[in-house]
Amino acid sequence: MSIFKIKHKSQNSKARTGVVSLPHGDVLTPIFMPIGTVGSVKSLTFEDLEQLQAQIILGNTYHLWLRPDMVVMRAAGGLHKFIGWNKPILTDSGGFQAFSLAKIRKFTEEGVKFQSHLNGETRFLSPEISMGIQSVIGSDIALVLDECLPAEVDHRTAKAAMERTFRWAKRSQAEFEQIRSQTNHQNNLFGIPQGAQFNDLRLESAKLTMELDLPGYSIGGVANGGEPEEIMYTQVFTQTEILEEHKPKHLLGVGTPKDLVQMVARGIDMFDCVMPTRNARHGGLFYRLDDHSYTTYRIKNEKFKADFTAINPNSRFEVLRRYSKAYLRHLFVAHELLFFRLATLHNLEFYLDLMAEIRGKIEADSFDAWWAGFKEVKN
Amino acid sequence: MSIFKIKHKSQNSKARTGVVSLPHGDVLTPIFMPIGTVGSVKSLTFEDLEQLQAQIILGNTYHLWLRPDMVVMRAAGGLHKFIGWNKPILTDSGGFQAFSLAKIRKFTEEGVKFQSHLNGETRFLSPEISMGIQSVIGSDIALVLDECLPAEVDHRTAKAAMERTFRWAKRSQAEFEQIRSQTNHQNNLFGIPQGAQFNDLRLESAKLTMELDLPGYSIGGVANGGEPEEIMYTQVFTQTEILEEHKPKHLLGVGTPKDLVQMVARGIDMFDCVMPTRNARHGGLFYRLDDHSYTTYRIKNEKFKADFTAINPNSRFEVLRRYSKAYLRHLFVAHELLFFRLATLHNLEFYLDLMAEIRGKIEADSFDAWWAGFKEVKN
Repeated sequence: MSIFKIKHKSQNSKARTGVVSLPHGDVLTPIFMPIGTVGSVKSLTFEDLEQLQAQIILGNTYHLWLRPDMVVMRAAGGLHKFIGWNKPILTDSGGFQAFSLAKIRKFTEEGVKFQSHLNGETRFLSPEISMGIQSVIGSDIALVLDECLPAEVDHRTAKAAMERTFRWAKRSQAEFEQIRSQTNHQNNLFGIPQGAQFNDLRLESAKLTMELDLPGYSIGGVANGGEPEEIMYTQVFTQTEILEEHKPKHLLGVGTPKDLVQMVARGIDMFDCVMPTRNARHGGLFYRLDDHSYTTYRIKNEKFKADFTAINPNSRFEVLRRYSKAYLRHLFVAHELLFFRLATLHNLEFYLDLMAEIRGKIEADSFDAWWAGFKEVKN
Repeated sequence: MSIFKIKHKSQNSKARTGVVSLPHGDVLTPIFMPIGTVGSVKSLTFEDLEQLQAQIILGNTYHLWLRPDMVVMRAAGGLHKFIGWNKPILTDSGGFQAFSLAKIRKFTEEGVKFQSHLNGETRFLSPEISMGIQSVIGSDIALVLDECLPAEVDHRTAKAAMERTFRWAKRSQAEFEQIRSQTNHQNNLFGIPQGAQFNDLRLESAKLTMELDLPGYSIGGVANGGEPEEIMYTQVFTQTEILEEHKPKHLLGVGTPKDLVQMVARGIDMFDCVMPTRNARHGGLFYRLDDHSYTTYRIKNEKFKADFTAINPNSRFEVLRRYSKAYLRHLFVAHELLFFRLATLHNLEFYLDLMAEIRGKIEADSFDAWWAGFKEVKN
């Protein structure tokens, strides 16, 4: 039975709205998932997330495995209970962090051995172990373990990693089903099509992953090296063209507001990215300029020093309506803790409102005439 | 006309409830004032403060003068407007920070020259300048500039500083009245009785300050050197015994929950201290054990690792009722930003609830039988 129901399709692009049905509730797509790495969307409470109308958040298996650890997680009854969040959660497999964060890591056919970035302790992660951890976490959507690659790889390396990722996906699926048969949980496992920058590998990986008949896909390995956006768009389109239309498609780790719009047009339903939250903490605030454009303000800019207009006069948050840009700048310059929450609320509201706008445009059949012109304006 | 109305007096102590009437509203005393050094009670919004039922907050003249600076403050229309807080604000005079924070400072009869702790810039603060700054800030209660002293001083040094503080208080008052006559504001200036640890100087300073007939007092120089609490209690009592009963008495920078209770019994009406907010940020959480005692938990303690009971099941904040101690510990250990807000809310709720309880006990005539036994229990 499919977990995804398409509501409305665009005529001249792959954009569509839909509903992903998960154990902790329905998710209206296209959607952006705020990142709660260690079980906290940085600086925010569940009240903030509810007011943002966040429908689903992402947790990082690698981080949660190391801290608080699975003893605590199991005792808590899973991540939802541990963090007081009753809506859906997606977790990654831990592979990307083992690749990118751990100081020393060695990939073998069995799995990946790495040293914890926290205390240097040696850990071993395999498809089976990742499934075990994600089962304890109890995420609504778990991901298969994949082998991640640096940005610049040759075809041979990329092909080998893609093939291993497929073998790991099969092992992940077998273990996931084994656990499900024992625990009777209703969680879902998504496959990860890879293939680096090579279109033939992207095609092959999509076809291989489809063989597993998993309920959805998280396209991986895109945009991890700052490649030109056209290449990134092509990588994704190559796969969304052949993956089954009726399955939800998540794009891992992307991206700018423009990327989101472009990717929706190419058939992506779900997004996650550190950009809104991380940029917020560094003083970069997204602002819509008009229907077709947006920009990023550096709140530290002198021009905000005596700008007493609201952070966002149209915000759903009273704090963003009542506090001024000058006050926000002051908090940033003075390294005040309150800054982080206000800036994070602002950027996530921008991202989530953009997704709601996209859904509205798709359903009003106005998306196709709009998406290609949506752009960032530098200031 | 007095700004203070006594509501109810204890029979066998100097404790009393009352109302301080200020331009931005009435303050029920005894009260604790959260510290918003640079115009932000660290990590909290005005919504948080309103939910805490904070009646008045404190801002630091020294910090606000340096940043954002008085150009921005004047353009904003004062601190209330700048920070979106419509209730009363008390500001100190800047003298204590010029003494304690500035790297180089030199006190003369004219004032204090110091180097900014932010950028090394040389600044000069005098009674007249402090009044000018506090006028731009627009605080409901401004304080006279006083000369602060290190914890261990001899009688001669303490006497000289106390006498200078009196001369500065007269200059502060003259300038304050000059500004008031020009601007027609209704703010209030409090005097600062000093005298270090010497009871004769404490007495003399109180008498001198009374000569100015200011609307209230902020007793200074107490508890800045970790002296035994009995000495601190005596310092205060020496002054509250002779200061006019019908004027509100604020004790600068004190203290522990026990100190607050002890000081209310000695006639103090208003408190401010970094303890609840600073301890919170360092993982020290106040918990009431029973009617007579409280303790401080170190949230990092292993015993909280799998303690899934609420941070405070009786809190007025849903986040403190729904989040567990185990989650709070996890946030602290993982250096997550959310920790600071939750811990700060918890400790301020403890402090403000304690003050409300004290007011209730005074009015129910049960304070006198209770206060002496209220104690901290180490754990």
